[in-house]
Amino acid sequence: MNAPKIEQSICEFLQEETIGEELTKSMIYSIKAGGKKFRPLLFLATLDVFDYSITQAEYNVASSLEMIHTYSLIHDDLPAMDDDDLRRGMPTNHIEFGEALAILAGDGLLTEAFHLLSLADIEPKKLVNIMGILSASAGTKGMIAGQVEDIQAENRQVSLEELQQIHEKKTGALIKSAVEMACIIADVNIFVQGKLEQYATSLGIAFQIRDDLLDVIGDETLIGKHTGSDEKLNKSTYVSLLGLSGAKEAFYEQCDKAQEALNQVKLELNQSINSLTLLDEILKELKEIA
Amino acid sequence: MNAPKIEQSICEFLQEETIGEELTKSMIYSIKAGGKKFRPLLFLATLDVFDYSITQAEYNVASSLEMIHTYSLIHDDLPAMDDDDLRRGMPTNHIEFGEALAILAGDGLLTEAFHLLSLADIEPKKLVNIMGILSASAGTKGMIAGQVEDIQAENRQVSLEELQQIHEKKTGALIKSAVEMACIIADVNIFVQGKLEQYATSLGIAFQIRDDLLDVIGDETLIGKHTGSDEKLNKSTYVSLLGLSGAKEAFYEQCDKAQEALNQVKLELNQSINSLTLLDEILKELKEIA
Repeated sequence: MNAPKIEQSICEFLQEETIGEELTKSMIYSIKAGGKKFRPLLFLATLDVFDYSITQAEYNVASSLEMIHTYSLIHDDLPAMDDDDLRRGMPTNHIEFGEALAILAGDGLLTEAFHLLSLADIEPKKLVNIMGILSASAGTKGMIAGQVEDIQAENRQVSLEELQQIHEKKTGALIKSAVEMACIIADVNIFVQGKLEQYATSLGIAFQIRDDLLDVIGDETLIGKHTGSDEKLNKSTYVSLLGLSGAKEAFYEQCDKAQEALNQVKLELNQSINSLTLLDEILKELKEIA
Repeated sequence: MNAPKIEQSICEFLQEETIGEELTKSMIYSIKAGGKKFRPLLFLATLDVFDYSITQAEYNVASSLEMIHTYSLIHDDLPAMDDDDLRRGMPTNHIEFGEALAILAGDGLLTEAFHLLSLADIEPKKLVNIMGILSASAGTKGMIAGQVEDIQAENRQVSLEELQQIHEKKTGALIKSAVEMACIIADVNIFVQGKLEQYATSLGIAFQIRDDLLDVIGDETLIGKHTGSDEKLNKSTYVSLLGLSGAKEAFYEQCDKAQEALNQVKLELNQSINSLTLLDEILKELKEIA
């Protein structure tokens, strides 16, 4: 279970299922642009908690999560949206391939995510359920609604509560869906699922706070995008609302919440709290980078 | 079975499943912009050939087809693409709501199409199959590939064969999928499905030729968009390649092919060739408008 295998799985599928060299290149360019593959790894790590044996079917689900995340980044970076020219240390998709192809590469990744998912060898009833969760969390009550609110919040002061609601939709919904889909596949009981969703939600908020912190104090060469972009767009962030030390405090608070939820899962599953799951690893890595 | 009911079904779903007034408005604006609802009606008319009793589940499928078609129009009209400011007699989505919201409204319609589909009360195995067909035909071997080729073909002379291959992907794939999905739902045998797909393919080409004809000889106030746009973009069309009378001839040839395929379906189903199905009606209307 690792990021290169997810990347490879996506690229092979896109190469097989795309007509047109430029279109294939532009989609693969963004998939290979070196992201953390956080959402698919979270999905696979959740399955690992239950010693679920991972096959190509689960890689299909993991890949679809990453394809949807990547499409959202391509569209977010467009001139009409955040107008970013650098992402993960490389020119953004529209800088490299032009705006028209970037829009279509995003559309392609989104559409093919559902195509790849439909081919997963998973019990059909579960698969339909998974498709519902993925589309709803990426949809107009989830990620897209959050993106609209994010744009509308530019150039005005938002409250901490509003900021949290934007992120809950813009990034939180898809992150939570990774855990939900794993729970459906592994037939997890409702209590444990609830705790895992809490873990994912806190993790998602912590990631967001870290991004906001890095936009102010990060090293452009290390994080691979221009810093100070939030300030440029007049965006309210955890840092602008809480200050640097307040944002750091909030970050560690969310990490503690995630750990607490994970400990409760372990107790329920009769695992030792000190056992190190892949979900612990994700949390540990997050803290190290921050 | 009618266009207003499809429109209503989509709008109710979007209103229920969207957070954000502007986002809801922009999606519904384009859904309500008065299209023919050709793809969903073709899907429902195909089911009608088999006297299939249509429920809300089939309206979900029909609606998802229209949502995907509508998203593709919104994105096609964007400044970076065809840069159209008029569609179906109304300002295009980005003219009315701005470019950022138009991109996101398109993303929203595409994503929510799969969401709505996942909620259809259809046997899960069939539903997964339907999702595969819809995503593949709208995807990077289908509609999106055709759109890329269409853009790449601007400002250069393409052959008739190339033109046909572009349209087969850009519009033909999704039109054919309407028939394929109906055949899966109604358990249609492979011979009849093949003939129905031939019908749909010829119908799709005929529609395209008609569009090209109307772009030259149409009345802007009647067809609701600027004429002469193909020439402006230096696009090869059936008219530029075959001339006016050649294009008209090709149009009627495709209509005849569609009728012939439909007659073979009727023979196989022991229906009278002179019986009037809804598929005949669609063909008849197409000829009248041309």
